[in-house]
Amino acid sequence: MGGKFQSLPGFRDFYPEDCAVRNYVFEHWRLVAHRYNFHEYEAPLLEPSELYQKKSGEEILQQLFHFEDRGKRSVAMRPELTPSLARMAVARQRDYRKPMRWFGIGQFFRYEKPQKGRGREFYQLNVDILGEPSESADAELIAFAIDLMLNFGFCTGDFVIRLSNRDAWIDFMQDESMPEDKLQEFLQVIDKMERESPEKTDKKLAALGSSLQAVKNFISSTAADKHFSSIMDNLKARNLSEHVSIDLGVVRGLAYYTGTVFEVFDRRKSMRAVAGGGRYDELCRLISNDTVSMPACGFAMGDVVITDLIKETKHAHARLLSHLGGVSATDVQVIIADESRRAEALSTIQKLRTAGFRVNYSMTENKVSKQFTQGEHAKARVAVIIGSEHPKVGVKDLAERKEEKVDAGEIINLVRTILDKTPEGPLYA
Amino acid sequence: MGGKFQSLPGFRDFYPEDCAVRNYVFEHWRLVAHRYNFHEYEAPLLEPSELYQKKSGEEILQQLFHFEDRGKRSVAMRPELTPSLARMAVARQRDYRKPMRWFGIGQFFRYEKPQKGRGREFYQLNVDILGEPSESADAELIAFAIDLMLNFGFCTGDFVIRLSNRDAWIDFMQDESMPEDKLQEFLQVIDKMERESPEKTDKKLAALGSSLQAVKNFISSTAADKHFSSIMDNLKARNLSEHVSIDLGVVRGLAYYTGTVFEVFDRRKSMRAVAGGGRYDELCRLISNDTVSMPACGFAMGDVVITDLIKETKHAHARLLSHLGGVSATDVQVIIADESRRAEALSTIQKLRTAGFRVNYSMTENKVSKQFTQGEHAKARVAVIIGSEHPKVGVKDLAERKEEKVDAGEIINLVRTILDKTPEGPLYA
Repeated sequence: MGGKFQSLPGFRDFYPEDCAVRNYVFEHWRLVAHRYNFHEYEAPLLEPSELYQKKSGEEILQQLFHFEDRGKRSVAMRPELTPSLARMAVARQRDYRKPMRWFGIGQFFRYEKPQKGRGREFYQLNVDILGEPSESADAELIAFAIDLMLNFGFCTGDFVIRLSNRDAWIDFMQDESMPEDKLQEFLQVIDKMERESPEKTDKKLAALGSSLQAVKNFISSTAADKHFSSIMDNLKARNLSEHVSIDLGVVRGLAYYTGTVFEVFDRRKSMRAVAGGGRYDELCRLISNDTVSMPACGFAMGDVVITDLIKETKHAHARLLSHLGGVSATDVQVIIADESRRAEALSTIQKLRTAGFRVNYSMTENKVSKQFTQGEHAKARVAVIIGSEHPKVGVKDLAERKEEKVDAGEIINLVRTILDKTPEGPLYA
Repeated sequence: MGGKFQSLPGFRDFYPEDCAVRNYVFEHWRLVAHRYNFHEYEAPLLEPSELYQKKSGEEILQQLFHFEDRGKRSVAMRPELTPSLARMAVARQRDYRKPMRWFGIGQFFRYEKPQKGRGREFYQLNVDILGEPSESADAELIAFAIDLMLNFGFCTGDFVIRLSNRDAWIDFMQDESMPEDKLQEFLQVIDKMERESPEKTDKKLAALGSSLQAVKNFISSTAADKHFSSIMDNLKARNLSEHVSIDLGVVRGLAYYTGTVFEVFDRRKSMRAVAGGGRYDELCRLISNDTVSMPACGFAMGDVVITDLIKETKHAHARLLSHLGGVSATDVQVIIADESRRAEALSTIQKLRTAGFRVNYSMTENKVSKQFTQGEHAKARVAVIIGSEHPKVGVKDLAERKEEKVDAGEIINLVRTILDKTPEGPLYA
């Protein structure tokens, strides 16, 4: 380590090799969003703090990077995208045909104790459908989430969608004659059930007028199946239902969900939620102070857990590595074998780049052998050797180790021929 | 306007149509960076305030979003990338072969009075070469900047590179026997010369031991040509020198430049700098407290001015519009002509998406005519019509208004055939 400056705790530096992994995740997110005909949007990274307080209550500020700006506004670095989405959708909903199919990829910030898999910043894909009350929108999102996973190279054994519905718990509360206004409190107990002791959960449930046994019976019964039939039929038609498991134990922490909730869950040993979402039909009404009502559902996937999971899962990791070999490889190394021909080399470099090739070269005088080594490090697939015989130049296929002498005017066609036959991917990986 | 929440002054909402323009700019930036064999990196959006104070002095904080975080650290939302780059490069410079060719695309923040073309956040491309003292690196960057402009569709008449060198002004100060330690002060005068009255400039120069006449004579003389010959020869070899004009009046405001400085300058009426940069051989030493010395040069292009300029320039604007038509268009609208066949339609949708097509459809029951209108709005190029005759389905080429009946198993091949012959771009733009 050289200097005294370091990045802040919980903030990541993306060196080129890290940035390539990040971009791989982003590209997959965009690819699937494109196939599902979603349109990208973005909101500010800094928003009025009140936007988050309105949605999540005063205590949310404790978890945010928030401050007073020079204009005396209380502002916060965004911890999530949904409140901004609701703000934007509410402001201009008349300008867009419903349903709106929108996605965003951006960075978010939370002031938390940094620990493995949880820094103070993260990237997140947000996918939302606005203006569609039907559960076919919920199914479309779940299909999207499944296709994201399949596209990364995960298989049935690697992940599962845990599907739940808060309405089922409202039914349960009615059956148990529990007070209606305890819904949020009750859902918090269900949410924590997996992580807390049965005794503690039972005690909490008793205080709300139910019991752990009643909850367990309900979860294992088929009483709630009616809430899932339309989504399950929809996913079955797409041949995706094998990836879905009904699990009433999933309620998702956020207060604003109103119906379907789901998680993409890592089925292997680490058992983490990779993504999650659900329906939030009341948020636009809340954000607009009752002036706009718009049904909505969405989900989000962060970059940290999915990236860890990709690296831990053989097939998904192989896809990543093959991609990384490709992005780091250059097409052509131009070798300047005679320094007095640098002008001719620069002219060739310019022409190759204009033709769309990725070109590397030594910016200063260098031994030919060193320039070939440079090309090897840059993972070049072709070498163009410019020397004293110019306008005769050498074009070398570095995979097949075959060199041809051609006229300068023929370089581009020959380079294209070689690149077309060379399979994508690194030669020297 | 629906709700009471608004974005903060100077911060932009990117609705899908705005985000598509932003992404177009990003894609061009990445394309040229790729051809020049640069590798992408990214740094945190929040950094210790000291990083910026170290580089630019205490007063820089007045222009930043800075605050004390919950851990009592003085932190700032980054106003630029170069200090972070220097921090990162210094920390791990031993891990990378020189020269390092790095680029970054990200968002930056400045607390300024919002005005046209200057908000409180902006995106910026940063391109840097680290570890190469030769001016051939400066030339490589200038060529990169020119290719960026050409790639956006700008021509010779639209822009010019104004090339300068601070060393020329050091020569001038020696010739005029001006005190060496007044360099920064003197350069500030030259920097402001274009915007201030000749009287004021002359007075300031007199105080430093020179005069406006001497400065003007120097600018119009050929005394400084020796500083530009290697860069100009380099660019001439690339056939790019017609885009470059030597202009000693350009010194760029930042204190850390050490040699070459340049601007991409809008030649038309608005006369704005579109991008700028130069050599900064001392910054790594400064950031590392003298432990690491690394020559460096770089430039940055913001998104705001270039986007305005694209929209104002006919040929560049046409390229943008053609691109936007393409990104907003879907491939296939699946029409569910018989609601009882929704399962078969969903199965088809899934297969089409898995084959890589972009697919839209009505998530709820809808009249066939309305579904065709939906397809029109989604700019679909093909309609797949699934009705009571399933597994016979209709595949309609919406450009040629020709429909064929095929077996469900043949849909994908037929859709591919139609899309292959339909030129890229919108049908209903």
